[in-house]
Amino acid sequence: MVQAGDDLPALLLAAIAEQGLALEAGDVLAVAQKIVSKAEGRLVRLSDVTPSAAATALADETDKDPRLVQLILDESTDVVRKKPGVLIVRHRLGIVGAHAGIDQSNIEHGDGVADEAALLLPENPDASAARLRDAIERSSGRRVGVIITDSANRPWRLGTVGIAIGAAGVQGLDDRRGGKDLFGREMNVTLINRADSIAALATLAMGETTEGTPAALVQGVASHEGDEPAASLLRPLEEDLFR
Amino acid sequence: MVQAGDDLPALLLAAIAEQGLALEAGDVLAVAQKIVSKAEGRLVRLSDVTPSAAATALADETDKDPRLVQLILDESTDVVRKKPGVLIVRHRLGIVGAHAGIDQSNIEHGDGVADEAALLLPENPDASAARLRDAIERSSGRRVGVIITDSANRPWRLGTVGIAIGAAGVQGLDDRRGGKDLFGREMNVTLINRADSIAALATLAMGETTEGTPAALVQGVASHEGDEPAASLLRPLEEDLFR
Repeated sequence: MVQAGDDLPALLLAAIAEQGLALEAGDVLAVAQKIVSKAEGRLVRLSDVTPSAAATALADETDKDPRLVQLILDESTDVVRKKPGVLIVRHRLGIVGAHAGIDQSNIEHGDGVADEAALLLPENPDASAARLRDAIERSSGRRVGVIITDSANRPWRLGTVGIAIGAAGVQGLDDRRGGKDLFGREMNVTLINRADSIAALATLAMGETTEGTPAALVQGVASHEGDEPAASLLRPLEEDLFR
Repeated sequence: MVQAGDDLPALLLAAIAEQGLALEAGDVLAVAQKIVSKAEGRLVRLSDVTPSAAATALADETDKDPRLVQLILDESTDVVRKKPGVLIVRHRLGIVGAHAGIDQSNIEHGDGVADEAALLLPENPDASAARLRDAIERSSGRRVGVIITDSANRPWRLGTVGIAIGAAGVQGLDDRRGGKDLFGREMNVTLINRADSIAALATLAMGETTEGTPAALVQGVASHEGDEPAASLLRPLEEDLFR
């Protein structure tokens, strides 16, 4: 139950120790966006939000709370798809998804009415990951990778998988373009998204354990050194064929 | 180096034994589509393909080999996006992606000219997974889950991640709709795609080891029993906002 202002690195290190785990150089610590956002005070009371006329109209179109829609618009650069029950936007960070990553579940809220609050993504998840990484190194002496995960929907497939919305100390893309396959032919599937794959497995592990487990220590995957922000995982806007 | 007609279950069980691993009930054996297709004889020589006028025109538009485009059209129900260098289609199985999953890398080809052949997806990957599962049970006495993986591109993110194109003995979707979160509120992100998450981690593991490792044994994830085909992971056509 992370609160605004909590010392997240200390909480994570305590949890790792409680589990009898030890950080090794090259590990990747995956942390759910939800607790990063909470620690950074990104919880907004809907009663503090005054929806604009545009937000109210879009809320009508999509059957959503106008105050939530106002927050979504504030956090995004454009609406990618909308219909009753669906509002897919491009977050100002470039991430395309439902509701600009704004989450209304498992929110701790002072007056006990959980659905009257909304949790925004961290202001800058790559910077959050870098701060977590540095703080963990200061406390533990171990320089690990950090990935901030979120659950994402996809256009043509049901159900969510984890993706990396923030990263530090991880080679997110394994670029094998120009490499040769076993027959000496240039490989045509050659850019592997390692960060998203690690986020997918970590999110699966978080979900497989007790409800509410918001972090996972991923060991044995960091065979590549590197330090790519999650921003580098985004397909450039000019390559987007699905605007 | 799997060939058409090879006994894939026997090869996989031998590889598992060689690695000193033991199958446990509840494990998931992830197998790359490439070796399933090869074993099933899905390799096509491009010199045997005669492109239609439509395939030739589409090849012109997309800067691709007309014979490859003919195979893509034969394997798909509609073109989702096209531009020079890009051809995204809906495979007849319902999977949306580049080239209908047809692969030209790491293809063994009789005359040694690897890029003159193309490998199609298995005719029915869910049936392939079920056959693998049954054969492994007959030989080993262990009833494991089987996932056939492929590397997929996504609209808004760079790099590939693994997805499940065939499955047997795996609860692919973890449906928590109607569940309550920690505050008793109905959860809003509630359908977790376990099969794709397992495929992502298995594909990462395959890639992290020696080039060409086409299978991974995933242990400790099968806390849910179930048996859903990968076809059930597809978003219904009427929900597709990105046609």
